[in-house]
Amino acid sequence: MAPPKQINIAVLGPEGVGSHVLSQLSWISTHHPSTHFNLIYLATIDSALYSDNYKPIDIETALTQLETPGTTKPLPTLHSLATYLTNAPHRVILADNTSSDTIAQSYPLFLERGISIVTPNKKAFSGSYELWRDIFDAARCGGALIGHESSVGAGMPIISTMRDFGITGDRVNRIEGVFSGALSFLFNEFAQVTPYSTVSGGGRWSAIVKKARERGYTEPDPRDDLNGRDVARKVTILARLAGLPIELSSFPVQSLIPEELKGVGSAEEFLARLPEFDERMDEERDSAVKAGKVLRYVGSVDVVRRKVEVGLKWFEPHDPIARLEGSDNIISFHTKRYGDYPLIIRGAGAGGSVTAMGVTGDMLRILDQLG
Amino acid sequence: MAPPKQINIAVLGPEGVGSHVLSQLSWISTHHPSTHFNLIYLATIDSALYSDNYKPIDIETALTQLETPGTTKPLPTLHSLATYLTNAPHRVILADNTSSDTIAQSYPLFLERGISIVTPNKKAFSGSYELWRDIFDAARCGGALIGHESSVGAGMPIISTMRDFGITGDRVNRIEGVFSGALSFLFNEFAQVTPYSTVSGGGRWSAIVKKARERGYTEPDPRDDLNGRDVARKVTILARLAGLPIELSSFPVQSLIPEELKGVGSAEEFLARLPEFDERMDEERDSAVKAGKVLRYVGSVDVVRRKVEVGLKWFEPHDPIARLEGSDNIISFHTKRYGDYPLIIRGAGAGGSVTAMGVTGDMLRILDQLG
Repeated sequence: MAPPKQINIAVLGPEGVGSHVLSQLSWISTHHPSTHFNLIYLATIDSALYSDNYKPIDIETALTQLETPGTTKPLPTLHSLATYLTNAPHRVILADNTSSDTIAQSYPLFLERGISIVTPNKKAFSGSYELWRDIFDAARCGGALIGHESSVGAGMPIISTMRDFGITGDRVNRIEGVFSGALSFLFNEFAQVTPYSTVSGGGRWSAIVKKARERGYTEPDPRDDLNGRDVARKVTILARLAGLPIELSSFPVQSLIPEELKGVGSAEEFLARLPEFDERMDEERDSAVKAGKVLRYVGSVDVVRRKVEVGLKWFEPHDPIARLEGSDNIISFHTKRYGDYPLIIRGAGAGGSVTAMGVTGDMLRILDQLG
Repeated sequence: MAPPKQINIAVLGPEGVGSHVLSQLSWISTHHPSTHFNLIYLATIDSALYSDNYKPIDIETALTQLETPGTTKPLPTLHSLATYLTNAPHRVILADNTSSDTIAQSYPLFLERGISIVTPNKKAFSGSYELWRDIFDAARCGGALIGHESSVGAGMPIISTMRDFGITGDRVNRIEGVFSGALSFLFNEFAQVTPYSTVSGGGRWSAIVKKARERGYTEPDPRDDLNGRDVARKVTILARLAGLPIELSSFPVQSLIPEELKGVGSAEEFLARLPEFDERMDEERDSAVKAGKVLRYVGSVDVVRRKVEVGLKWFEPHDPIARLEGSDNIISFHTKRYGDYPLIIRGAGAGGSVTAMGVTGDMLRILDQLG
């Protein structure tokens, strides 16, 4: 009988995805008592919960403890944190639920010391290619592992599928998909397809953007979705996993922020002026409709031609990309082994609990390998 | 720097999927030289290649060696094989590429001795529930691992996704899909949907069955697909992974073999008489068409109501199940976390190289955990 597995966990960012990560860890502890995730460090943006003797923090009450005066400590520097974690008994997984660029830049510091990293944070993997290489080199040298399943498509098996293609010797020829829940919702509403594939309009673009923001499908500032950067980051990650050493800035990314509004200050001001450009978006949609096609915002990686693109594209009304619903993501993998019909994965690509599922799934895999 | 990982491999069945498994192992050895898969045993149905001192067999030339007079040995009993593998240096993975029921029944014998098993063979996991329990109990006691990703949906991430739902605490409410490449092809041809969702007929049922057989989409005897048993087996596996302790014989499975032809001997005789029943299939299709629906052969697991079904069902013309192409499989997972929109995975669910990818992917995961 295998001995119980044990690993230490340090969590950065207990809100949002982080809160779901904590509750999933708590569920796992209760339901798989042989799985020992010891939470030894939990930090917000300005304070941390940890003890010098690595005493496990009770996950159930961790969030309450964070708010109890006197129980937290000042935030250590990332260097001190790395030292603290390096000296822990058992291996350590650092779960980075923040979107901090500073923390992303410091991954190699942790990895080279044998501290594994799991994160939904895209920044590290879509930053400079030099950082990408440093991260994977540091992990190799330190014998640490990296899990970033939820950096693309939240909890869906996207990164693991790419890895399986790579390690078993399949050849990925092309990847295409809708990688943003916000842009999925916007275009599913704006360029609709009836059940019988009649392409048609939806409402006014500016009104849909407002609605999407109110319902929480977009970032608080919708421009953070409309600029296409989030899609570009995800596409960069997949392109690199497919073997293309590309930089984020090296391929065309179509922004849906009108040139005239680039100088606008607040999100509110931007949204107030957006209706001025509804006609322009109507034209985009209508020329597609006239050709019997459906307008969508997609990212694609042509591995063979080494060409990466992010922007508007027309699709046949019966194409699975034209037929998305809600704020679903969809990703098609065209590979040598899959031949004429790609492997297609579709579902929620955002949301706290599914994103956290990608993070905790990665933790469990690392525990299996290192615990 | 992590030491190179090493594990012994025993392969049963070097043809079909097995030949792809061997060539993928060979690819991995060449491209990931730090991954040491030592092939120490390779067996056909009546002879085996192995040496008393566990000398690795050259994978590249293994198939030639199998045909070289004097190099093979008589097939050992499964008990002797288990003893041989138990005494090997390093851990062992047994890859069962056969569809032998006898070998499936003997999995616990290997697992309790610490020998891990990977297989595309559905039989063990869809046999009696007692065998299922014995297999997982033996693995736990022996500290061995089990990989059967390709027992459902070939190389697609179906079993691993089910496992992730389970271990991270998601709740699967319903699973539905097209689980047979043969039945997918037959119905995609027989009950067609135009790009604009007009439902319509296809050719004659008996002619399509013949065509599918000629193109290799069905088993040599198409009745092995038409009886629905293969789908029932896959659905049984998913139902069990979702927590239902069901038996294969405990739920309705609609057979597409006409009652009148149940006594017929050869596949040829069956195919010769099948046209007599074309009208009956036309009626099935046409009543769906009249209602604006599309006829498909699906399996479903309603976890909440503990209800499992395999058979014909009508779908809306814009449903992803109605819009399948080729011989693709599609599986939808309705879970608590995914909410209103299921996670959907679609792609080739059969074929040597994609099935082997599921097998070698499992081997690599086991190597990561045990090597």
